[in-house]
Amino acid sequence: MLDLTELVDIEVTVAYVWYAVLLIVKMMLLSPLTGLYRVSKKAFANPEDAVGFGKGDNAKKFLRTDPDVERVRRIHLNDLENIVPFLFIGFFYSFSGVSLSTALLHYRIFFASRIFHTVSYLIPLPQPSRGLAWFVGYLATFSMVYKLVMVSLSMS
Amino acid sequence: MLDLTELVDIEVTVAYVWYAVLLIVKMMLLSPLTGLYRVSKKAFANPEDAVGFGKGDNAKKFLRTDPDVERVRRIHLNDLENIVPFLFIGFFYSFSGVSLSTALLHYRIFFASRIFHTVSYLIPLPQPSRGLAWFVGYLATFSMVYKLVMVSLSMS
Amino acid sequence: MLDLTELVDIEVTVAYVWYAVLLIVKMMLLSPLTGLYRVSKKAFANPEDAVGFGKGDNAKKFLRTDPDVERVRRIHLNDLENIVPFLFIGFFYSFSGVSLSTALLHYRIFFASRIFHTVSYLIPLPQPSRGLAWFVGYLATFSMVYKLVMVSLSMS
Repeated sequence: MLDLTELVDIEVTVAYVWYAVLLIVKMMLLSPLTGLYRVSKKAFANPEDAVGFGKGDNAKKFLRTDPDVERVRRIHLNDLENIVPFLFIGFFYSFSGVSLSTALLHYRIFFASRIFHTVSYLIPLPQPSRGLAWFVGYLATFSMVYKLVMVSLSMS
Repeated sequence: MLDLTELVDIEVTVAYVWYAVLLIVKMMLLSPLTGLYRVSKKAFANPEDAVGFGKGDNAKKFLRTDPDVERVRRIHLNDLENIVPFLFIGFFYSFSGVSLSTALLHYRIFFASRIFHTVSYLIPLPQPSRGLAWFVGYLATFSMVYKLVMVSLSMS
Repeated sequence: MLDLTELVDIEVTVAYVWYAVLLIVKMMLLSPLTGLYRVSKKAFANPEDAVGFGKGDNAKKFLRTDPDVERVRRIHLNDLENIVPFLFIGFFYSFSGVSLSTALLHYRIFFASRIFHTVSYLIPLPQPSRGLAWFVGYLATFSMVYKLVMVSLSMS
């Protein structure tokens, strides 16, 4: 039986929860943003959504894809692809015996990278702004994975 | 070092696990449902899937998008966008010192909202049925976020 | 108040973390793979991405969907739809009083099924290779759900 209690610093896990909540709220705000773009662009995916904006054939023409709506949807999917892995890895990482300052560094860099990713995707800023933002968050996650693997190997 | 043991009520976390499992099972059932719609509508995304339904050019015509298949896929993506945040927030929330009855209220409202969302998306019911269902679950999640922020502020 | 301490075997949770990290890394590798396919196929979703590959109208023609790029994106979405549920269910399952050998069996079967799913989707192998790979992982997850429900019922 392993003794993990010596590894656990509850302050790191509390810090994790704080950044996890911030990231989840940031990600969830994209749902109403998509709705806002759909209404302002009159571009809907479902007939029952378009029907409020016109009758019959008039409603049908609002059943379309719009580049700006699709852009927000891609931001949302990209957040799912990157923030959800962070939420798991960051949680495990908070039990890896890492110091509070090192953990905060990782959590803050990841959080900043996702904010900058969304901003540069939404405006949009010329590349490689968005690419770099994504890459910094990606690296921060893999840096935590590296620590987890090192701890795991030292335990066995 | 914070003392969180006084905050933890294991019965709340057990209640959380119960609703988490229900929501995950509900979300996972959309995978075979998509498959069912693809087969019954003969609308596939991959040539290797369509080939069983015809040879050569005949198979190619089944490589298409179908409105009903896309509808089920949007339900699945909407579940990912809403249920996954709940799974994290609801987990943190179960350690926030909340009473079992208040926690159950949140978990049940969220669960009911997602069932009603799927039903109103699938039939589909006229709007604002689906919109309201989504919004109730969204509010329940943010109500838990609010509690987490309040607890977090009172600790610091 | 339930006494869950007798159910917890930390070695099972450590095994869970190990497979969770492997699965998350596997899923995250699909992001650069999508980028690689986008660049090699010159098929982009955003004007700011395409602009590096040509000026004006020349760049516009690279704003397109490509079957191979879409294939990698479907693998990524399928991973989100299946691996994220596993990450939650497998975590709960590690606290269900299951033996290490039974847990490892589930974790390994699920991991192997997702590797085989990606390989058979990417090549692609003729069906039912990919379908079977998906189904084995799906069954492994539901086998863990079954155990959770059984434990839950025996506690109440």
